[in-house]
Amino acid sequence: MTSTYSLAVVAGDGIGPEVTEQALKVLDVVAQGSGLTFDRTAYDLGARRWHATGETLPDSVLEEIRGHDAILLGAVGDPSVPSGVLERGLLLRLRFELDHYVNLRPSKLFPGVPTPLADPGDIDFVVVREGTEGPYVGNGGAIRVGTPHEVATEVSLNTAFGVERVVRDAFARAQARPRRKLTLVHKNNVLVHAGHLWSRTVDAVAAEFPDITVDYLHVDAATIFLATDPARFDVIVTDNLFGDILTDLAAAVTGGIGLAASGNVNPDRTAPSMFEPVHGSAPDIAGQSKADPTAAILSAGLLLDHLGHAAEAARITAAVEADIAARDGQPRSTQEVGEAIASRVAAEVSVA
Amino acid sequence: MTSTYSLAVVAGDGIGPEVTEQALKVLDVVAQGSGLTFDRTAYDLGARRWHATGETLPDSVLEEIRGHDAILLGAVGDPSVPSGVLERGLLLRLRFELDHYVNLRPSKLFPGVPTPLADPGDIDFVVVREGTEGPYVGNGGAIRVGTPHEVATEVSLNTAFGVERVVRDAFARAQARPRRKLTLVHKNNVLVHAGHLWSRTVDAVAAEFPDITVDYLHVDAATIFLATDPARFDVIVTDNLFGDILTDLAAAVTGGIGLAASGNVNPDRTAPSMFEPVHGSAPDIAGQSKADPTAAILSAGLLLDHLGHAAEAARITAAVEADIAARDGQPRSTQEVGEAIASRVAAEVSVA
Ligand SMILES: CC(C)[C@H](C(=O)O)[C@@H](O)C(=O)O
Ligand SMILES: CC(C)[C@H](C(=O)O)[C@@H](O)C(=O)O
Repeated sequence: MTSTYSLAVVAGDGIGPEVTEQALKVLDVVAQGSGLTFDRTAYDLGARRWHATGETLPDSVLEEIRGHDAILLGAVGDPSVPSGVLERGLLLRLRFELDHYVNLRPSKLFPGVPTPLADPGDIDFVVVREGTEGPYVGNGGAIRVGTPHEVATEVSLNTAFGVERVVRDAFARAQARPRRKLTLVHKNNVLVHAGHLWSRTVDAVAAEFPDITVDYLHVDAATIFLATDPARFDVIVTDNLFGDILTDLAAAVTGGIGLAASGNVNPDRTAPSMFEPVHGSAPDIAGQSKADPTAAILSAGLLLDHLGHAAEAARITAAVEADIAARDGQPRSTQEVGEAIASRVAAEVSVA
Repeated sequence: MTSTYSLAVVAGDGIGPEVTEQALKVLDVVAQGSGLTFDRTAYDLGARRWHATGETLPDSVLEEIRGHDAILLGAVGDPSVPSGVLERGLLLRLRFELDHYVNLRPSKLFPGVPTPLADPGDIDFVVVREGTEGPYVGNGGAIRVGTPHEVATEVSLNTAFGVERVVRDAFARAQARPRRKLTLVHKNNVLVHAGHLWSRTVDAVAAEFPDITVDYLHVDAATIFLATDPARFDVIVTDNLFGDILTDLAAAVTGGIGLAASGNVNPDRTAPSMFEPVHGSAPDIAGQSKADPTAAILSAGLLLDHLGHAAEAARITAAVEADIAARDGQPRSTQEVGEAIASRVAAEVSVA
């Protein structure tokens, strides 16, 4: 069987292009011998284009991207652009327009990875972060800007439709994992309207999944457990903003954002899903071949998994695990890490 | 010189009464021999009263409390009461009505305290959390509750007035500390309206404090640094919700919420300030003499400091530090910890 996929590549800003190059290299090695072909279209979006044209994501480009099977994204954001312009106009616009309501962020402590925790335990959980609602909707504004009478608002929008679909997705994922545990994280003692919608929805869906253990944590308490006992978590489901915060912390305790992959998934497949490292554009080290491409490479693995190629995805994870186990603390360039992982993927094939 | 203060005591729910009793015991020992007297009025507020009368904080009680010099609070919240009722109706109502716009949360790793971090460094920072605005204002609602068409909102309200006064307070605190560093934490690349108000305000006030080093972190990145390099922080200023999250994490890395004290401060002294441990009511261990009263005792220290008795406050901190250094991991009851710290405070006096 051969399959050809069209891939939209948005390398973006800062270290985005460097790490994406390595992810594509590994993807190509996996593809060879698996009967898979990835036809790539590169989209020049991000700071450079904004400076040149004032555009973040033109409608016509969005429609072109929509025609692809999947999107690989590097990183978005640059200090030369006012904060929020590219994040809201490009990254979040893609997530919202393509209905990426499941923002999937696995956290696993690979053997041999240095962690800031003295006694991390066996960390292996996944955060299902809602991706199209909450405080991220961009529904807010300000009056009397720049005066002593300025008032600025941000509105968190939450719908039964939006909460239920992501909660169902999280339950299905918990069902497929050995521990079958789901933790809702919110702040329902303060944000009572949104919080109670989330809590009621989890309670209702839980009735259909009697073999799943469900618990609830306030977001502040959840950060404590991520520092003191992260191994307790299996599947976390949470809103867009809390998920943003928790997954950076989760990345920190599992060895840093150099390793954290993510998928912006449209489970209904009405539009392409998008895969990206959790890290940002890190402009301070851009262009110096210092960035760790592992998170981007693992994101390509999530992409393969989403397209139905679990075995190929597993090859990437195995190669990354082996590479990590062999790391000796010597600095390697972005390219060297990419090459090393690509060679391991290639070697796996010849062994198999 | 003798001074008499009127103290409103809201012991509250769960472990609140147990830990508050120990804090009052220590406060009394400090008072003896310092010429200070604390006249106490206990207010029966919390779950019991709500079940008995349906009241959370009657206006008349609020007005009585307002007439005091300070408030000592234990903890609020109980699983028998719907989530949010006591938090919003009692705790947050006190903070908002009494204009506690500086929620002060020091984080210090005392020598000998176990921390989850392998290499914590010398942690000593303070979070200045805004206390009267942001997503905590209770400005939200829901329609079609319980139907598939439910929509729930939460509105974060931010004013130039509210942001500027807490930012000024944070700069003044940074000025008084040896490292003179201030970090603004927000999410100004997504919550652009509120975030830019905060960023612009910090920039403007910074111009008046040229010897203070200012930086900015997104809230997600801040959690990474709290796990990997918390010693980098000196003063953090942030909004109500981000402050809630960061201070629980900060407590976790400095030995747990059993040690984290806080002050809800009205710097203009138009109403009494309120001092409380960061931990909650912990109903699972309530009434078992298992709760660590150290955070409540340290909160009484912050109360003394706020009333202008820095030397007396320092006696509490010194006694707590000495007690912590002598801990050998053997479990002690709430009373035993309180007694031990009270005896050390008493001993300090006889030595001096
Ligand atoms: C860059 C930013 C808009 C983004 C987010 O907040 O979602 C990032 O932090 C992430 O987690 O993917
Ligand atoms: C109990 C709750 C309302 C409160 C808050 O969110 O402020 C608590 O978490 C705290 O940090 O004091």
